[in-house]
Amino acid sequence: MYENYYAVIMAGGTGTRLWPLSRKARPKQMLRLLDERSLFQISVQRLQGLFPPERILVVTVRDQADDLREQSPSIPKENFLLEPMPRGTASVIGLAGIALKQRDSQAVMAVLTSDHFIGNEDGFRNLLAAAYHGAQDGLLVTLGITPSFPATGYGYIQQGDKIGEYLGREIFHVLSFKEKPGEGQAREMLETGDHAWNSGMFVWRIDQILDEFARQMPELNNQLREIAGAWDSSARVETLERVWPQIKPETIDYGIMEGAEKVAVIPAENLRWNDVGSWDSLFEVLPGDAQGNIVIGGQHIGLDTSQSLVYMDEEHRLIVTIGVNNLVVVDTGDVLLVCHKDQAQRVRQVVSQLKTEDNNFI
Amino acid sequence: MYENYYAVIMAGGTGTRLWPLSRKARPKQMLRLLDERSLFQISVQRLQGLFPPERILVVTVRDQADDLREQSPSIPKENFLLEPMPRGTASVIGLAGIALKQRDSQAVMAVLTSDHFIGNEDGFRNLLAAAYHGAQDGLLVTLGITPSFPATGYGYIQQGDKIGEYLGREIFHVLSFKEKPGEGQAREMLETGDHAWNSGMFVWRIDQILDEFARQMPELNNQLREIAGAWDSSARVETLERVWPQIKPETIDYGIMEGAEKVAVIPAENLRWNDVGSWDSLFEVLPGDAQGNIVIGGQHIGLDTSQSLVYMDEEHRLIVTIGVNNLVVVDTGDVLLVCHKDQAQRVRQVVSQLKTEDNNFI
Repeated sequence: MYENYYAVIMAGGTGTRLWPLSRKARPKQMLRLLDERSLFQISVQRLQGLFPPERILVVTVRDQADDLREQSPSIPKENFLLEPMPRGTASVIGLAGIALKQRDSQAVMAVLTSDHFIGNEDGFRNLLAAAYHGAQDGLLVTLGITPSFPATGYGYIQQGDKIGEYLGREIFHVLSFKEKPGEGQAREMLETGDHAWNSGMFVWRIDQILDEFARQMPELNNQLREIAGAWDSSARVETLERVWPQIKPETIDYGIMEGAEKVAVIPAENLRWNDVGSWDSLFEVLPGDAQGNIVIGGQHIGLDTSQSLVYMDEEHRLIVTIGVNNLVVVDTGDVLLVCHKDQAQRVRQVVSQLKTEDNNFI
Repeated sequence: MYENYYAVIMAGGTGTRLWPLSRKARPKQMLRLLDERSLFQISVQRLQGLFPPERILVVTVRDQADDLREQSPSIPKENFLLEPMPRGTASVIGLAGIALKQRDSQAVMAVLTSDHFIGNEDGFRNLLAAAYHGAQDGLLVTLGITPSFPATGYGYIQQGDKIGEYLGREIFHVLSFKEKPGEGQAREMLETGDHAWNSGMFVWRIDQILDEFARQMPELNNQLREIAGAWDSSARVETLERVWPQIKPETIDYGIMEGAEKVAVIPAENLRWNDVGSWDSLFEVLPGDAQGNIVIGGQHIGLDTSQSLVYMDEEHRLIVTIGVNNLVVVDTGDVLLVCHKDQAQRVRQVVSQLKTEDNNFI
């Protein structure tokens, strides 16, 4: 019954928030943080049973394509679409849209992330199935996450009236999309009970989303049509390389979702979703020992050490911690990060600083 | 006027308190912590003007001898005395004593350390000169340090009546030697004003200290006499190798000083002496930056970082600290130590643990 259902995994991000582990040459989705699989491999494998590999598309950049193909050899080579350079999620989704349309004009397309944690994978597949039905009924479905705390690191979706139910999941009209809030606003939204976190994942019919591009982003739409015209010809690469640099960077949220019609949200509970957006987020997704410590790689001896994370690239090194709490220690060989857990977001500041200098640390 | 004055530098220690930098194969006196010179080199060079190199003896172990000779090529090769194995400071001083006696029966001998910091080197040379006069007058002179805080990491010397003055420095009878005290006792001793820290440095006439060995440590004395008998013969090495392992380990404090006659102390003020006995002691001897941070080696970026020490073996590595205070970070390539400053003494605990296991980390 889901034979026209396709997954589009966005895997072109670089991600500086897990620096120094995430780098230009080793983006977040390639990291093996949770188990022996990379976040990308986990993102692909949790689709099993709902999307066979031939119905999974991956949009990425040239530098990452070989590695990603190697990590997921079951996905056909031609399903990897290459952005010549990053131009925001609107263009990524547009590119996947025109590629899919050539293949199946009836396609329903799930736009998925490649670098998030989802603890409840059964629940996630059920959510994707419910969203499919919503999309078939003509809705642009956003996957929401019922908030468990007043997060300031995520965007929010304000729910309106209930539209109905699919597979036991309620679906609501969307009143508005909201940017990452301050702490007070986040607390208010949590209290109202009618806001969900924006997971950045969407499900819709291909014809419908392309109509929205035509209506709301005519310039990008023309550029995409030019690329689509050359898609099945020998001029595909040349056209893409020529047109893509002219595209104005834009996100799908700003460019399409905020002004779209028939936008709906299915808020999901108990997915144990986490965007693994910073080192401190690992405390939420990985089990700690009795002292709440998480040790990844290396050998560790801890005296009076608690609520701390130790990551080491090299298995044969010894790390000793004495009298430390709430500390993140990340050793990548060339760089050593020692950071209070509550300030883990500030690694971005360091990356920004390093970008202005001549070095190999980013 | 000091032509019979000899320095004996004890340089056989291993020192686990600056682990992971100090190792079996890289003891504390060989570390270049304060500047480009090792602590041993500094200890030799600050004797300049008082002891020419030919009157400096170094007692060490075989494993360290080559490195030490290389670090101080001006000291004659034969001035390096090798303990076959560590047997405590009493035997070290006894060995130096018999070697010196063969050379100059009128010798005055200053027993000095190889791994301490002394900020005021002029003051130190003046102290050694004053102690020489005390020794010539038949006193066993211990060099005391006027305490600046209630230290629990040093032994103490209780001063009795004043004997007199040498070169403007007062000299006192010694009432007792005291072990490292608890905090309350340390505070009391500081308040009385008649206690000095025991620096482990001594000055005495060679005939007088050897008399004390004969009187108080007859067994060791016999062993030393046997070695002395073979000293200028081809049997020196064989005799040393045979006799030394039978020596019972003992310190000079317990074995001789506590029961000796004519023991005196010159308490020195303003020497800026420090035994560099643990990582936190470096904050007392090295200048910090505006935030009180000390960075040795490597490249450092600190956000919201204060009162912390960063040591790195490799110059090309980057270390980033964010939101940390009072932290000691030491990276020696194979080992990374991250330790609260106040718990720096506990690295010994880790070394003890590692000794029970099969590894190359100590």
